[in-house]
Amino acid sequence: MKVFIVFAHPESQSLNGALLRTTVEELETQGHEVRVSDLYAMQWKSQVDRADFPHLSSDVRLKVAYASAEATTSNSLTGDVKLEQEKLLWADTVIFHFPLWWMGMPAILKGWFERVYSLGFGYGLGEYNDMKWGDRYGEGKMQGKRAFVVVTAGGWREHFSARGISGPIDDLLFPINHGLLYYTGFEVLPSFIVYQADRLNEAAFKSTADELRQRLRTLSATNPIGYRPQNGGDYEIPALTLKLGLGGASDSGFSLHSV
Amino acid sequence: MKVFIVFAHPESQSLNGALLRTTVEELETQGHEVRVSDLYAMQWKSQVDRADFPHLSSDVRLKVAYASAEATTSNSLTGDVKLEQEKLLWADTVIFHFPLWWMGMPAILKGWFERVYSLGFGYGLGEYNDMKWGDRYGEGKMQGKRAFVVVTAGGWREHFSARGISGPIDDLLFPINHGLLYYTGFEVLPSFIVYQADRLNEAAFKSTADELRQRLRTLSATNPIGYRPQNGGDYEIPALTLKLGLGGASDSGFSLHSV
Repeated sequence: MKVFIVFAHPESQSLNGALLRTTVEELETQGHEVRVSDLYAMQWKSQVDRADFPHLSSDVRLKVAYASAEATTSNSLTGDVKLEQEKLLWADTVIFHFPLWWMGMPAILKGWFERVYSLGFGYGLGEYNDMKWGDRYGEGKMQGKRAFVVVTAGGWREHFSARGISGPIDDLLFPINHGLLYYTGFEVLPSFIVYQADRLNEAAFKSTADELRQRLRTLSATNPIGYRPQNGGDYEIPALTLKLGLGGASDSGFSLHSV
Repeated sequence: MKVFIVFAHPESQSLNGALLRTTVEELETQGHEVRVSDLYAMQWKSQVDRADFPHLSSDVRLKVAYASAEATTSNSLTGDVKLEQEKLLWADTVIFHFPLWWMGMPAILKGWFERVYSLGFGYGLGEYNDMKWGDRYGEGKMQGKRAFVVVTAGGWREHFSARGISGPIDDLLFPINHGLLYYTGFEVLPSFIVYQADRLNEAAFKSTADELRQRLRTLSATNPIGYRPQNGGDYEIPALTLKLGLGGASDSGFSLHSV
């Protein structure tokens, strides 16, 4: 496999850093090719702004989507963004390693998506008509590739359980797994979560690392989350609402969108 | 009222910029005091990293929570962060104006929370014992203040409806409204959402601006979202799961946490 890892933690001597090294070592031991983007170490620019579109005249209003489409088409995206896009195209598997901060990914990783998912690469692909609504949610440039997240959370497993106050972890990760990864065509594997990350002792780290290695050894046999393709017949187009009768007992919410 | 507005869009000549001006003008017309943090214009630093803790020796491992606690206690947070904390303490109402990008807030605003919500300001307050689990979710430094978000989305209203492919908008905003705003004690007012933001013509903008002004005139009469206080008896402590029998028909998900 060709595995691209995006890592978003400011400290290499952290639990996240140790998990990253576990992943890299295990994959290389298996003979896979591995490339890593360590966003903090790269001093990745964390937000999309006018500097991302150097060809845009300074007196022109910045419309991010239009500027992004223009820069993608004319091959004038900045070098750092182009390199990340090349890594995504090179890989067959992409792993995101990050801590859950304030119920979501770190800002630097959010900004990675804002910049790397340019119009014409991450969105705005394919036809929009009565039968389909662009190459999205199951289709797109990442189709045929697999991705998943390795996440550490400070809170307890119970806090992120079905009735936990933080909300179920799979719901908190839905905007990432479905809205960002499945959106561009990735098959999304189940998330790997570590709870109480600030209090992991040596024994707990060892068993966590073992579990992670086991996941990495069985990647090709792991079933992806069963998200419904947008253009596969389950959704009204262009309303993009799940057709009535589908989705079982629930009549609302994220869980409707997987089988 | 004293209103603090946090604005996160790179272009003042955008729909978001026009909505910001609508908010400021309407509030000032009503005689309220208004302060604005325009994050892009301020060149706000978008991610938390070692530079946020200048007192931390360069050979010491960065543990964000510990460094943040130390900097808060010793009053050595960076000047930009201290100023934002002062604005939060000054205000009685806080409004966040931003576009929904990739199902969440812009990276620059996520980084604002990561940096401004320091340990000892945004979290890690109050006692942790069998009866309560810190001052959080209904308690905290923002108790007695109100907050809400004004959000633009490129997608259609249907895409964000109960059965829409993006997920219900209130679920997408739950990690912000509940996990960030209610967490620090804010009473959270219903979100103000503008759909198909890229295609708003003049008439649609006018009616949207009118609706926003109407919201701003009736703020004090608007009921907050009925989130359940963490320490009010509805949750098991320390599991922080909603007690059985509460939450109506649903046995899982974000909706359990409001009445």
